[in-house]
Amino acid sequence: MSKREKITWMAQNILYTNPIDLAKDFAQFWHDNVEHQKVFEGFSENTISNFHLPFGVAPNFVINGKDYAIPMVIEESSVVAACSHAAKFWAERGGFKTTIINTTKVGQVHFLFEGASHDMEAAFQRMRPDLLLAVKDLTANMEKRGGGIKDLFLKDKTSDIPNYYQLEGHFDTVDSMGANFINSILEKWSEVLVHAIQEDALLDKTSRNVEVVMSILSNYTPDCRVRAEVSCPVDDLGHFKQGEISPEQFAKRFAYAVEMAECDPYRATTHNKGIMNGIDAVILATGNDFRAVEAGAHAYAAKDGQYKSLTHCSIEDGQFRFFIELPLAIGTVGGLTKLHPLAKKSLEILGQPSAEELMQIVATVGLAQNFGAVKALTTSGIQAGHMKMHLTNILNSLKATTQQTEAAVEYFQDKVVSYSAVRAYLLEHDNG
Amino acid sequence: MSKREKITWMAQNILYTNPIDLAKDFAQFWHDNVEHQKVFEGFSENTISNFHLPFGVAPNFVINGKDYAIPMVIEESSVVAACSHAAKFWAERGGFKTTIINTTKVGQVHFLFEGASHDMEAAFQRMRPDLLLAVKDLTANMEKRGGGIKDLFLKDKTSDIPNYYQLEGHFDTVDSMGANFINSILEKWSEVLVHAIQEDALLDKTSRNVEVVMSILSNYTPDCRVRAEVSCPVDDLGHFKQGEISPEQFAKRFAYAVEMAECDPYRATTHNKGIMNGIDAVILATGNDFRAVEAGAHAYAAKDGQYKSLTHCSIEDGQFRFFIELPLAIGTVGGLTKLHPLAKKSLEILGQPSAEELMQIVATVGLAQNFGAVKALTTSGIQAGHMKMHLTNILNSLKATTQQTEAAVEYFQDKVVSYSAVRAYLLEHDNG
Repeated sequence: MSKREKITWMAQNILYTNPIDLAKDFAQFWHDNVEHQKVFEGFSENTISNFHLPFGVAPNFVINGKDYAIPMVIEESSVVAACSHAAKFWAERGGFKTTIINTTKVGQVHFLFEGASHDMEAAFQRMRPDLLLAVKDLTANMEKRGGGIKDLFLKDKTSDIPNYYQLEGHFDTVDSMGANFINSILEKWSEVLVHAIQEDALLDKTSRNVEVVMSILSNYTPDCRVRAEVSCPVDDLGHFKQGEISPEQFAKRFAYAVEMAECDPYRATTHNKGIMNGIDAVILATGNDFRAVEAGAHAYAAKDGQYKSLTHCSIEDGQFRFFIELPLAIGTVGGLTKLHPLAKKSLEILGQPSAEELMQIVATVGLAQNFGAVKALTTSGIQAGHMKMHLTNILNSLKATTQQTEAAVEYFQDKVVSYSAVRAYLLEHDNG
Repeated sequence: MSKREKITWMAQNILYTNPIDLAKDFAQFWHDNVEHQKVFEGFSENTISNFHLPFGVAPNFVINGKDYAIPMVIEESSVVAACSHAAKFWAERGGFKTTIINTTKVGQVHFLFEGASHDMEAAFQRMRPDLLLAVKDLTANMEKRGGGIKDLFLKDKTSDIPNYYQLEGHFDTVDSMGANFINSILEKWSEVLVHAIQEDALLDKTSRNVEVVMSILSNYTPDCRVRAEVSCPVDDLGHFKQGEISPEQFAKRFAYAVEMAECDPYRATTHNKGIMNGIDAVILATGNDFRAVEAGAHAYAAKDGQYKSLTHCSIEDGQFRFFIELPLAIGTVGGLTKLHPLAKKSLEILGQPSAEELMQIVATVGLAQNFGAVKALTTSGIQAGHMKMHLTNILNSLKATTQQTEAAVEYFQDKVVSYSAVRAYLLEHDNG
């Protein structure tokens, strides 16, 4: 069905409305350029329109001595502003320092084998060269770019589930996120595995059988990890809340807030949610997959058996230090990075970074966002700012005049802002 | 700065390009309607354009006997198609059944008190009525809608961090996500708390001091939880992979795949990532906050001390059963739900659901997505489908002719699809 046919179907079967009016409603969000519109629609299925998210830029970032303006796509207020402010604050104090810890990606063939574990291990050692040989065609291009298979081994998972094993591959996918590359190799390996076991004359005949359950990359990539940090003498932090809070008090309270997020899962969840506000905005802007990044980051936050903060803070010998460490499996080629016209533009704005450079940029934005959020929470609180911006949004949406806006801002200073309360206020104000 | 001034600044300082050309690049994604454009820009800061994501609809859902077509916003291929197929599959087998387990939201005032724990507890009991009284103005409207404060208590966290306590509030925010409501109450409570301790004559003078570190809602809401499930006799599952896989084999292999995600964090992360593909698409389409939902869901997946699958499967007495349980703190009023024009439209398509109904819809889409993904993984594998769609996207973006497209599809049948490989192929094809 065409877009118009789908909309007509929906008007007649779901919304019981006039198909022409409904088509107008959706068509106003189509892109004028038919080629662009075709590209957006191709990303997904059953599409009838586009959903617009604001595309902004956070300037002032200094990372390892280099200046950046960072594209961010996010529908939540305060995030871009908080990141820009935090970036400026730290640009004046030496900027952000980042390190790539490793870039290993992981994929697994999950299978069942009913024979003895030592037989499976021996059979794996025999078939290993064949597994690697069978994917030579698939790895050739990646090897040219400096990547490929880093390791391949057997994992015995029979203590979790009887007969459960994994072929685990470790991969370097250079500047691509690598999902297609890894999944293609894994599916090939699963074929070779089944065949090799069937043909292995050294196995007892009754054991020559494996059942592959599935073959797929893992979004948990603790060894594709990056670290970003800031530090300065406590005295250089300056005063906060119009001089009310000293640098020492600020540092101490900030460190407490981070420590609380390290020990209380209720706080950790919200703390990390704020970090992801910054991270996802860059992930979206660069055409990467935010669900993959979210899953990897949160699973990493739970690695010690309790869900914890992704950032850490210390005050030692008068030095304030704040850092983040998290896995980020992302790309600057492949996927949507070149297909989405604004993702392509984002990578231009960032100076065509490698995947490693983008990991460092993204981690930095997460740290900046968290610094801004925790600073706001531990000094002035966040409600005054949030309420003001939410009020502006509602007044925009209700097409309030400048005069109405000014009056409403004063009226709502000490009240909870809501769409219905603002609408009621405007109606009353009109009548008066 | 205006949008054009910001773009000029970026052209001159970041991209070293012609400001007029750059303005054209970004302006082509602005909305023609100035009012709409103003609304999008108001959501965030430093905005220069809009980022388009495809807006699609997944039909065929039957939830608790009611038909739904579900709006989804996602840039990843296969997600909407997989959901629609899974929905149709289960519509023919009784549809989805859902249950709201609870709707309690949580907020905390985090503070330090240097006196004895029993003194703090006694002081809290004395101030409790004042805390509740102080927020009467803030809760009045919410109480009219049937919500408000459900509980308020003191949590002693001194075994984690010396002197650390929390005021924890439990809230019912009815159809709103409730962040502004909860945060406003918490900030008021923090003021009352400081004052009450200062004035508490029953406390030793040296103990009359608390330091509030921060006041904020929690995105971890295990008691704002929903469950969605499907079930049918194993025999009714039908055959898979052109009859190659029997219903019994399918059920068994499917259950193994879910069990593997329950015991292996590497697999669990990817398994849950797939669930969130479906969930976030509805969250985005309805103007809710996907970072909040992601954080809450993944923290819940880690609640037992190891990161695990959010879905579960059983085969008992010939009955196949598959369900999801997860926290979802979302709204159908407030936030962007009425401000974003397509979010408003999404809620219309869903029949103006309450927050509880939306929780059930969202959980259902997560379950449907997971069913589709695990079905694909355990039967045909996912690569053939992914590669085909990725190839189509690249060919669209490179403006390939119908003839080129047909030839490329055949050529890439047994090769890894990448942007550069497809471009190289097309160039060569042109020359031939």
